Amino acid sequence: MKENFNKTDPTPELLDIGLIGLSVMGRSLALNMADHGYLVAGYNRSPEVTQKVMEEHPHHNLIPFFSLPELVSALRRPRKIMLMIQAGAPVDAVIDQLIPLLEEGDFIMDGGNSYFGDTNRRAALLKEKGLRYLGVGISGGEEGARFGPSIMPGGSREAYESVHQILETIAAKAKNEPCCAYIGPEGAGHYVKMVHNGIEYADMQLIAESCLLLKYAGGYTNRELADIYRTWNEGELHSYLIGITSDIFLEADDMADGDIIDHILDSAGQKGTGRWASIESLKQGVDISMITAACNARVMSNHLERRQKASSLIHAPAVTAVEDKQAFAEMVREALYTGKIIAYAQGFSLMQDASHRFGWNLDLGSIASIFRAGCIIQAEFLNDITKAFLKDPELESLIFDDFFLSRINRYQENLRKTTGLAVSSGLPVPAFFNAVSYLDSFRAKAAGANLIQAQRDFFGAHTFERTDRKGIFHHEWRAGHEV
Amino acid sequence: MKENFNKTDPTPELLDIGLIGLSVMGRSLALNMADHGYLVAGYNRSPEVTQKVMEEHPHHNLIPFFSLPELVSALRRPRKIMLMIQAGAPVDAVIDQLIPLLEEGDFIMDGGNSYFGDTNRRAALLKEKGLRYLGVGISGGEEGARFGPSIMPGGSREAYESVHQILETIAAKAKNEPCCAYIGPEGAGHYVKMVHNGIEYADMQLIAESCLLLKYAGGYTNRELADIYRTWNEGELHSYLIGITSDIFLEADDMADGDIIDHILDSAGQKGTGRWASIESLKQGVDISMITAACNARVMSNHLERRQKASSLIHAPAVTAVEDKQAFAEMVREALYTGKIIAYAQGFSLMQDASHRFGWNLDLGSIASIFRAGCIIQAEFLNDITKAFLKDPELESLIFDDFFLSRINRYQENLRKTTGLAVSSGLPVPAFFNAVSYLDSFRAKAAGANLIQAQRDFFGAHTFERTDRKGIFHHEWRAGHEV
Repeated sequence: MKENFNKTDPTPELLDIGLIGLSVMGRSLALNMADHGYLVAGYNRSPEVTQKVMEEHPHHNLIPFFSLPELVSALRRPRKIMLMIQAGAPVDAVIDQLIPLLEEGDFIMDGGNSYFGDTNRRAALLKEKGLRYLGVGISGGEEGARFGPSIMPGGSREAYESVHQILETIAAKAKNEPCCAYIGPEGAGHYVKMVHNGIEYADMQLIAESCLLLKYAGGYTNRELADIYRTWNEGELHSYLIGITSDIFLEADDMADGDIIDHILDSAGQKGTGRWASIESLKQGVDISMITAACNARVMSNHLERRQKASSLIHAPAVTAVEDKQAFAEMVREALYTGKIIAYAQGFSLMQDASHRFGWNLDLGSIASIFRAGCIIQAEFLNDITKAFLKDPELESLIFDDFFLSRINRYQENLRKTTGLAVSSGLPVPAFFNAVSYLDSFRAKAAGANLIQAQRDFFGAHTFERTDRKGIFHHEWRAGHEV
Repeated sequence: MKENFNKTDPTPELLDIGLIGLSVMGRSLALNMADHGYLVAGYNRSPEVTQKVMEEHPHHNLIPFFSLPELVSALRRPRKIMLMIQAGAPVDAVIDQLIPLLEEGDFIMDGGNSYFGDTNRRAALLKEKGLRYLGVGISGGEEGARFGPSIMPGGSREAYESVHQILETIAAKAKNEPCCAYIGPEGAGHYVKMVHNGIEYADMQLIAESCLLLKYAGGYTNRELADIYRTWNEGELHSYLIGITSDIFLEADDMADGDIIDHILDSAGQKGTGRWASIESLKQGVDISMITAACNARVMSNHLERRQKASSLIHAPAVTAVEDKQAFAEMVREALYTGKIIAYAQGFSLMQDASHRFGWNLDLGSIASIFRAGCIIQAEFLNDITKAFLKDPELESLIFDDFFLSRINRYQENLRKTTGLAVSSGLPVPAFFNAVSYLDSFRAKAAGANLIQAQRDFFGAHTFERTDRKGIFHHEWRAGHEV
């Protein structure tokens, strides 16, 4: 169709979709669409970026534009425009520019990492203007965007139905099904992407902790670690993250002798969406302690000087020596798998709560199935989560699913042993700790909260409920206690 | 001075302070001021509340008002008005009503539990109007408000200097010093109150966890628990919360046989300011995992049916039996004390970060000294914190203070043993877990973050720093890994 298109005298309404923002993710997504036969109008605020993309990634279905009015007039109606720009104020700015150029029924899709609250707000604004808006979570990094990401579209179902073909076409496929499905109204798509990122943080942290244990208590070399993770990747832990972990330990340094992993600074960055999930969980009152622990672990790792100083001042306990290395690795594997169940249970609980709280009616099984390919947390495991929610869409927690419950009951002893060894050895494993802690709080017959409530009633007359009768009670605590 | 005041023909400008909001905290504070000789104009939106307070708590220095203009015109200039009303929109509403009634240089003080961001905003608004504004954190519950709370005033220093006498007069006294001192600009006072509440959550959770261990692993009876906490209250753990814990275990039920503690539902409520601290810490990038764990523990305790169901489905590990009960109690005491150091270190780190981030120049030693009496977390311990910051106002963490460091080095083994016992016994002790975890992340030579950064560079080209040279690097990871 390129042949029909003459840029100097553009036939209007010929192109399928406009893509605004051509840095790595936007460019990759545009090329993905172009590969699938869509005629894409590409635009970037800086014309140099547009020029550079055209030179370095020429594609006969990707046509450059240097003004928004021209881009808009080149699009087939109803017009479809995807924003792939920095979250926050830039999204509002571009929407404001587009509104006067668009007509009733046209579409704007935000494919960036927008905060779901912003998406809620924008969806309401554009509805008022007669435009259709989708907040589209996209995961998979550059590779995913280019060849098939996991896509989480939120907005009105009717709007999704009108654009589903293009999104499903460019999405990753798992067992021949597209990793893209309607998520829910308003900012539901960006919300689910936020939780996906939180789960990703926890998953990576658990793997890092398993590695600390294997290396410092188990004494494994990098090559042995690569073998262990490769073996694990052939079993129930099969996942993208375990796979690349194995690869990482095999990688030679290209700037110095030895392995690259040993020359990478022990300090991890973060961009913020994992943290958003933690903040949201606190607002909602849902415990996602493992995700929060993963965010905090990155923060703590950044204090390199403080760690150095503290390690010289605080006595280090002796690391418990491991006798049977093979049994030890299996113990850690079971701990990791159990921790993973609990991290995902936390993330899915958060989405379930949001679904009820915001009236989104999320299909958690469908969400798990979208995560099966294209995204960072893609894993065998997600098939089992999909099955669990297909069996029981109202499943209160993944922990209650028969499959996962049986794993927890079989593996929890090794989660406890692994964590106990870390405690006595002084190895920092906050995600493992919070896995045990969540499990035991989840199944606690006695949580000690009666004492807390007694204290609250004592000092603040906050009242309490009783175990033996209904109602709200206040006790007249004896005065005269010494302070 | 009451004699000079004739309500039916009010001599204007005679009263010292107006107090708006006469529910428990406001009424108690008004009576506290009145006790100290201040002439207080009391007002409540519902006149019935005002009437009731006058009937039930008559005081010759507390004069009721039923309209804001009358109250304002009865105040000595510059006028001082303290708001003791529900945080949020009601505060804005009353401020809007007061602005046209006040004159340049008059004061509004918000003594409620306002979110510090709201206080920042209001301080800017009132400055524009030529009025002086203080956000005043007040802790101590009804008892504290009535007879001497801990007071944390934030705003301009000049404004504080003009009202300090009344605030310091009604504040609690520790070693003859008032538990009230200027905190810092804008919302600094409410911020510190928020962190105080977060620390309070962690402190209560630690005590509840110590109690779970003593009761379910140690097998102590309520009376024995009362004795243990009373003994602990005579040593370095001496504090209000330990004191009332001892009292609580001695308390007979007034509605049934046995002790009240055994009939209080094992489910704890929360009002939100502890949670605010957790949310703020995530925004700032400061790890206060013990405070967050305490918030989450309350949330988890509320799921009573889920806990019941889970306890029947998830195998419970056998609780490790304790042989030497006395040694066990001492082990738990040392764990509790160490956990407490770490919880306070987290809270004070958060304030220190806020001080730099917001340019507030907080005096952490002075803040610790304000907490020594009047408030819920009042404790012997706070004298040691005050000393630590007097010695080194820029102390990076309480953990680095000689006194606390020596305690950590002496006690950490018992923190580890206690936590290890909880892990193997299945007792939920999230605050203890996160204490160990924070300590080990704080002093970690190896945190495993190099693997996380390698993963981030692998899938997202997020780059990394190196251990052996300066700069930002990206590695060309081998393709072809299996997914």
